[in-house]
Amino acid sequence: MVFIGIHAFFTSLNDLERIIRCPGRFKYEEHNVAAHSWKVSQYAMFFATLEERAGNTIDWKSLYEKTINHDFAEVFIGDIKTPVKHASLELKQMLAHVEEKMMEKFIFEEIPTDLQEVFLARMKEGKDATIEGRLLEFADKLDQFYESFAELKHGNTDREFVYMYQTALTKLLQIPLQVSVLYFKNEILADVIAEKTTIDIAQLTNQILQNHKD
Amino acid sequence: MVFIGIHAFFTSLNDLERIIRCPGRFKYEEHNVAAHSWKVSQYAMFFATLEERAGNTIDWKSLYEKTINHDFAEVFIGDIKTPVKHASLELKQMLAHVEEKMMEKFIFEEIPTDLQEVFLARMKEGKDATIEGRLLEFADKLDQFYESFAELKHGNTDREFVYMYQTALTKLLQIPLQVSVLYFKNEILADVIAEKTTIDIAQLTNQILQNHKD
Amino acid sequence: MVFIGIHAFFTSLNDLERIIRCPGRFKYEEHNVAAHSWKVSQYAMFFATLEERAGNTIDWKSLYEKTINHDFAEVFIGDIKTPVKHASLELKQMLAHVEEKMMEKFIFEEIPTDLQEVFLARMKEGKDATIEGRLLEFADKLDQFYESFAELKHGNTDREFVYMYQTALTKLLQIPLQVSVLYFKNEILADVIAEKTTIDIAQLTNQILQNHKD
Amino acid sequence: MVFIGIHAFFTSLNDLERIIRCPGRFKYEEHNVAAHSWKVSQYAMFFATLEERAGNTIDWKSLYEKTINHDFAEVFIGDIKTPVKHASLELKQMLAHVEEKMMEKFIFEEIPTDLQEVFLARMKEGKDATIEGRLLEFADKLDQFYESFAELKHGNTDREFVYMYQTALTKLLQIPLQVSVLYFKNEILADVIAEKTTIDIAQLTNQILQNHKD
Amino acid sequence: MVFIGIHAFFTSLNDLERIIRCPGRFKYEEHNVAAHSWKVSQYAMFFATLEERAGNTIDWKSLYEKTINHDFAEVFIGDIKTPVKHASLELKQMLAHVEEKMMEKFIFEEIPTDLQEVFLARMKEGKDATIEGRLLEFADKLDQFYESFAELKHGNTDREFVYMYQTALTKLLQIPLQVSVLYFKNEILADVIAEKTTIDIAQLTNQILQNHKD
Amino acid sequence: MVFIGIHAFFTSLNDLERIIRCPGRFKYEEHNVAAHSWKVSQYAMFFATLEERAGNTIDWKSLYEKTINHDFAEVFIGDIKTPVKHASLELKQMLAHVEEKMMEKFIFEEIPTDLQEVFLARMKEGKDATIEGRLLEFADKLDQFYESFAELKHGNTDREFVYMYQTALTKLLQIPLQVSVLYFKNEILADVIAEKTTIDIAQLTNQILQNHKD
Repeated sequence: MVFIGIHAFFTSLNDLERIIRCPGRFKYEEHNVAAHSWKVSQYAMFFATLEERAGNTIDWKSLYEKTINHDFAEVFIGDIKTPVKHASLELKQMLAHVEEKMMEKFIFEEIPTDLQEVFLARMKEGKDATIEGRLLEFADKLDQFYESFAELKHGNTDREFVYMYQTALTKLLQIPLQVSVLYFKNEILADVIAEKTTIDIAQLTNQILQNHKD
Repeated sequence: MVFIGIHAFFTSLNDLERIIRCPGRFKYEEHNVAAHSWKVSQYAMFFATLEERAGNTIDWKSLYEKTINHDFAEVFIGDIKTPVKHASLELKQMLAHVEEKMMEKFIFEEIPTDLQEVFLARMKEGKDATIEGRLLEFADKLDQFYESFAELKHGNTDREFVYMYQTALTKLLQIPLQVSVLYFKNEILADVIAEKTTIDIAQLTNQILQNHKD
Repeated sequence: MVFIGIHAFFTSLNDLERIIRCPGRFKYEEHNVAAHSWKVSQYAMFFATLEERAGNTIDWKSLYEKTINHDFAEVFIGDIKTPVKHASLELKQMLAHVEEKMMEKFIFEEIPTDLQEVFLARMKEGKDATIEGRLLEFADKLDQFYESFAELKHGNTDREFVYMYQTALTKLLQIPLQVSVLYFKNEILADVIAEKTTIDIAQLTNQILQNHKD
Repeated sequence: MVFIGIHAFFTSLNDLERIIRCPGRFKYEEHNVAAHSWKVSQYAMFFATLEERAGNTIDWKSLYEKTINHDFAEVFIGDIKTPVKHASLELKQMLAHVEEKMMEKFIFEEIPTDLQEVFLARMKEGKDATIEGRLLEFADKLDQFYESFAELKHGNTDREFVYMYQTALTKLLQIPLQVSVLYFKNEILADVIAEKTTIDIAQLTNQILQNHKD
Repeated sequence: MVFIGIHAFFTSLNDLERIIRCPGRFKYEEHNVAAHSWKVSQYAMFFATLEERAGNTIDWKSLYEKTINHDFAEVFIGDIKTPVKHASLELKQMLAHVEEKMMEKFIFEEIPTDLQEVFLARMKEGKDATIEGRLLEFADKLDQFYESFAELKHGNTDREFVYMYQTALTKLLQIPLQVSVLYFKNEILADVIAEKTTIDIAQLTNQILQNHKD
Repeated sequence: MVFIGIHAFFTSLNDLERIIRCPGRFKYEEHNVAAHSWKVSQYAMFFATLEERAGNTIDWKSLYEKTINHDFAEVFIGDIKTPVKHASLELKQMLAHVEEKMMEKFIFEEIPTDLQEVFLARMKEGKDATIEGRLLEFADKLDQFYESFAELKHGNTDREFVYMYQTALTKLLQIPLQVSVLYFKNEILADVIAEKTTIDIAQLTNQILQNHKD
């Protein structure tokens, strides 16, 4: 990036549309970081609504900020494979540190002085213990759940997606958001399991021929 | 869509990742509706921040809802070409009406009864006279501005993009958001105009050879 | 389009190569409007040959015109999703009306005066009660049949394709073209149903190893 | 292909949608053989109309057959690079011979006996001395002209497209179709040359800002 | 190609990255000639290592040259469909002859005089009776084996891939490389057959739910 | 990866065909790691030939191993953006360490015991001080040079490619390979600078019309 100011920031949003998640693994439907961020903001709004109706207080501005910005740093580092990030705790911390430094450098170089504090707050790691932080975590995992589900449903037998599905589902069930987890388990999962995954074309055809004859 | 419940809604988000804006016209960078919605939510947050700092009150929950949902209806009707929508006022109203009916049908069939009201409110046309409605309008136009700018910058001479750029820019300058328009005009546009659009490779090479010699 | 004259018309043909049918739904093989039009012209020629051999008279110029031009209007309005078109009879008529108006506008603006009448006749709705009109209808449905069949055969379980297959097949059987429908039912469908849809790799391998040993 | 009968023929049409012309060379807009065939059938219909109005007799059934079938043989041999075909007269004849043999084999194996003669006539080389044969030649070259023009216009500097443009244009001017060539030269070429090929974004922007101020 | 000298040669390498193998047939994973050549060089190095450890002498420079250059000629003729090449022995020889002539023409026109002999030797047909020639043959077939296996595994039921798999496997078992063939048969094939090819999502989900409950 | 043995290794080669270099930045021609590795093996063979002719001794087996394996580790970590790798020396070392550990883990888990030593030697960092190590470095940089040159030539004005071109060229001139650097500077660069980068279509057309008239 060599532009300056907010124009540089806006231009970088477009770059995130070009960064593909798990490049080379998805065989049926590719996902980019921009679209992923939008889906996370959608899931989070839905479950925040459930939590609010159950009596919890939601800071909607915070949830908005957290969800749409949570992967902005990928504009600097790309989509580093999860196994790499988790190879060692030391590396994970190191990568988080570099990410933070590159973000700060970007903010100090590109963002006008009087807005730097806002951007620093907005772009910092959002998955904290607040209910908004937990909703972000839940929504982010849910997208992994749906991404892997779509591949498996279409017939992709790559074990990586079985693993992604298992990991995402396991984590979703453990996130401390009682109302959301319950809803996901009782409503969403029931529909997921019930989805038909094969079509018998000959039977389909014969049925129509039969109907036509009658 | 044949799924039911919120699972159907979440699955439809994935469909929006597959709906391409202005199919077949963008030669350099394609855009899908999901990624576009995210960029709009980003622009809107930025200009809302400016407006808030200038003393205006922002309803962040409303802005969040408006921006991420503003193109959800395209899951039903696809990306109908703008000239079609604007061919006659009557058609425009008719299309808006059908869109509304399909949205209602979807909500009544797929969304659990106790959440239907929330979805009806959230999915209705967001470009109203409130400051959040105007910010949505501004952000939506700004993405058209950036989409056409990117094509022109890369050398696309399709007059449709010249027209899109002219229209978007003209409308941006007219939206009643004093602080945002001024900032856009003085800060963003200055950087846009200043962007270098050609590279002389021979000169670039000779310079490096010269440096190497010295 | 800002070109003028026949050059504008020829350039618009290229645009139809970029308009994707049912954008975002086909997971295995995308189809554009230009290629679809060609396949329709092929199917129509085949069934017209059958009908002619059975004693019917074919106006080949008319069939040629009808098949290659039947989706030209999509250059103006794109591929509007079928459920939208069928949402209400009123909307369907309105869209047909707008389409017609845009076509006329194009012809009056771009086509030289002495050719306008030819173009107006050539571009009007071709699915009339003539045998050529019925052959166009049959061929157009047959392509939907083949497009949905190909998706289902490759393992796509999206119910939209089951529905498209059912609808196309049902309509094909009802079109008043006795010879063509009979041939389709007795010859084509028999082969369609007989297609093998799964391969057992282990068995395939062991067979070859067995042959090698012998 | 392992299907049999007309189903095999219809399935092979879909294969032609997947065969890309000049694979790997077009940088802006790819073309497949199916879409190309459709464009050729469009150009041919237009110029046949001109020739007919000038007093020539057109056999429309023949023109229809010639244009939509002229590249069907590519389903067997793919899009062999032109320089290869023209490397030696002997090779060219040999390839034509193989193509013919594979076509015959396909027709004898897949097409029902009573239709084989029709298919043999329909699929044989169409670029003969008849007016329909010359119109096919003209339309086929015109598509090469437009394909190379589009690449050059978008800024592709690959000399192969300069050469393709030069060759196509030179040949177009020599085809014995007086009315068509004259029309192409006087009407089409004038518009081609007049097309604007660069856009000055800064000027465009300043103009709008100026208008806004006034 | 209109460049001259080694720059022309290096630029042509990039062209091979754009030439797709079996265009239009692979539904899951496309392969280009450059990547294929690399995989062949990898397989060959592995089996050459086995053969060397078994006491055979390997000329590594020759193996290196043979593997990376074996499909360079496709830059001139593209990926001509195998059935075409094998349609007649005469045509196969003719094509090989043209290929050779175009290669010579390229070398004499583009390669500096003192390097022409090196290039002529390096680019000639590499599948001779030497152990390096047989390893090239083995590695080239192995890539066909893996390419077809990947399609079949993902659920592609196109009979062409069944045929490609059968042919490749049958030939692999017959190549006179005792150590390599044995290793392939006993080690590789065992793993190939053992690969799981379907995933039961409902079972996977219930298992995780069960674990979560416990 | 869940396969075992050499089958796992061969399958991972296919994965490298799906890992795109600098994802989202190349606008004209994408490159994958497999094809890049092949081009590096080609450049290296050419310059090794020059060096050998100038009296240097080349270990061809070593060069073969180094070039085809130099980016294999990307199968584990993907294509991490260069600015990230260079953000701090500490991070660079940390990433190199993790890469090494993942490679070792892969070798110990997947590669048969008696081949592990061979793989460990083959997969270790190849850019050492040997002439083969320097040729690898030179060839790797040359591909960056050609990748950025191709983008700039096609009109991409992204400053990242200007920077990539400058950096690659500067480093190429400094690598201690006297013969290769001289050849690159005197022969390749001269041709690079001489490439024509714009085409005037109107002039091209008028010239042909003029020729036609004469």
